[in-house]
Amino acid sequence: MAYNNSRNPLRALQKKIDNNILIRLKDGTEYKGKLKEYDNFMNVILTDASEFNKEKEETNKFEEIFVRGNNVLFIIPDAE
Amino acid sequence: MAYNNSRNPLRALQKKIDNNILIRLKDGTEYKGKLKEYDNFMNVILTDASEFNKEKEETNKFEEIFVRGNNVLFIIPDAE
Amino acid sequence: MAYNNSRNPLRALQKKIDNNILIRLKDGTEYKGKLKEYDNFMNVILTDASEFNKEKEETNKFEEIFVRGNNVLFIIPDAE
Amino acid sequence: MAYNNSRNPLRALQKKIDNNILIRLKDGTEYKGKLKEYDNFMNVILTDASEFNKEKEETNKFEEIFVRGNNVLFIIPDAE
Amino acid sequence: MAYNNSRNPLRALQKKIDNNILIRLKDGTEYKGKLKEYDNFMNVILTDASEFNKEKEETNKFEEIFVRGNNVLFIIPDAE
Amino acid sequence: MAYNNSRNPLRALQKKIDNNILIRLKDGTEYKGKLKEYDNFMNVILTDASEFNKEKEETNKFEEIFVRGNNVLFIIPDAE
Amino acid sequence: MAYNNSRNPLRALQKKIDNNILIRLKDGTEYKGKLKEYDNFMNVILTDASEFNKEKEETNKFEEIFVRGNNVLFIIPDAE
Repeated sequence: MAYNNSRNPLRALQKKIDNNILIRLKDGTEYKGKLKEYDNFMNVILTDASEFNKEKEETNKFEEIFVRGNNVLFIIPDAE
Repeated sequence: MAYNNSRNPLRALQKKIDNNILIRLKDGTEYKGKLKEYDNFMNVILTDASEFNKEKEETNKFEEIFVRGNNVLFIIPDAE
Repeated sequence: MAYNNSRNPLRALQKKIDNNILIRLKDGTEYKGKLKEYDNFMNVILTDASEFNKEKEETNKFEEIFVRGNNVLFIIPDAE
Repeated sequence: MAYNNSRNPLRALQKKIDNNILIRLKDGTEYKGKLKEYDNFMNVILTDASEFNKEKEETNKFEEIFVRGNNVLFIIPDAE
Repeated sequence: MAYNNSRNPLRALQKKIDNNILIRLKDGTEYKGKLKEYDNFMNVILTDASEFNKEKEETNKFEEIFVRGNNVLFIIPDAE
Repeated sequence: MAYNNSRNPLRALQKKIDNNILIRLKDGTEYKGKLKEYDNFMNVILTDASEFNKEKEETNKFEEIFVRGNNVLFIIPDAE
Repeated sequence: MAYNNSRNPLRALQKKIDNNILIRLKDGTEYKGKLKEYDNFMNVILTDASEFNKEKEETNKFEEIFVRGNNVLFIIPDAE
């Protein structure tokens, strides 16, 4: 693995564009949808997105949602 | 999708100017109104805005409201 | 609307100088007064200001108050 | 009012040097004393200062106190 | 030990690439997996990762997980 | 008072080097000791330091302690 | 004491490399071990480290641990 790669994990999201990803926020809420855009602050736009509460129940659907990066706990790049 | 696009999700809000958007804050409060202006910190000005509590009850109306970006949880760019 | 405008909502406060505005802080406290000065961090100086608690009761009056920007939740630029 | 003034509210504190000001912190504690020095982060040095709890009871006196800016909620520039 | 080394602990993670590491978040959750990439903000990508709750019970498995650095409490570079 | 002075309260600590100061942290804990070094982030090294809990009981003694600036609530430059 | 020294307390850790230090985090957890590396954000690598809970009971041992600086409350440079 090249040194540069190991210093830029965000670039790894580039190849997930148009794939389904899952975002868990610090408060436990999760958003699953197609990754449309993102930036270095982990601001992310998802399309065809679903919102899940801590009990993993679907609580909402959004055609498009813009999630602010500073609330993100983790991202699962390959969500089924 | 161009690489540059995928690195600047905030630019995607540009085409939503004058559209209705919905902003959810970290505390669960929501603001729905016409997007008038925004910046890279997600500071947003809405006009003809309504405030909703966590129970989705409308609690206030504002001709114009300036929401500070660091409180934003997510933005739904197409709110009916 | 010019592109530059849509990237600088804080500049929109410039035309509210000497108008009454309302500031809600994250803890629910509100300050209403005449906008005298502000900066890019949303630090704001109000004159002839009133403080309101969450129940919207007036709890204090200040000839001049300097509110630190990082506590601000939102600003209503036209408070009656 | 000049444009530059309206972008630098902290400069307004300059003319309060040696005056009594009141500082309320985020936790409700208040410090009243003579403004000796300050900087752009709202770090402030007061002399002949008193500390008050939320019930406005005086809880301490300090010849000199250095208050860290990031705890400040607001400053009242003219405290009697 | 060279002076430069002592000023860049993050560089020490470079030699752990492809090793199993353990990440504890501020909320006590832990993630164990193979270190794939990281950056100076401690954003980390793990593969073949497991999630553990505070009671050290495995609560989830992820082929790949992107953990946001600002939630990290500590990293154990050599997790068995 | 010179304008520059009023913009750099941290410089005022320079003349307190080797004097006893008191530091109160946001959680109410206090540290009293001889000021050895400090920087612009209010990181401070004290020697011959004592730790006090909120009830002002001495809970610990340290030959040398390095307090991280971002936890500091205030500093009393002249602690007896 | 030279002026420069008094402005860079972190440099004082340089001479503690390979010594035992103690780190207390904001949540009261403590880590004691040999200082291997550190940086200006107070990110620290300890070797032969022990973890202690608030009751000062040893709760874990780590050959090597990387503690994220922004969680640090204080560092005791000479831990026995």
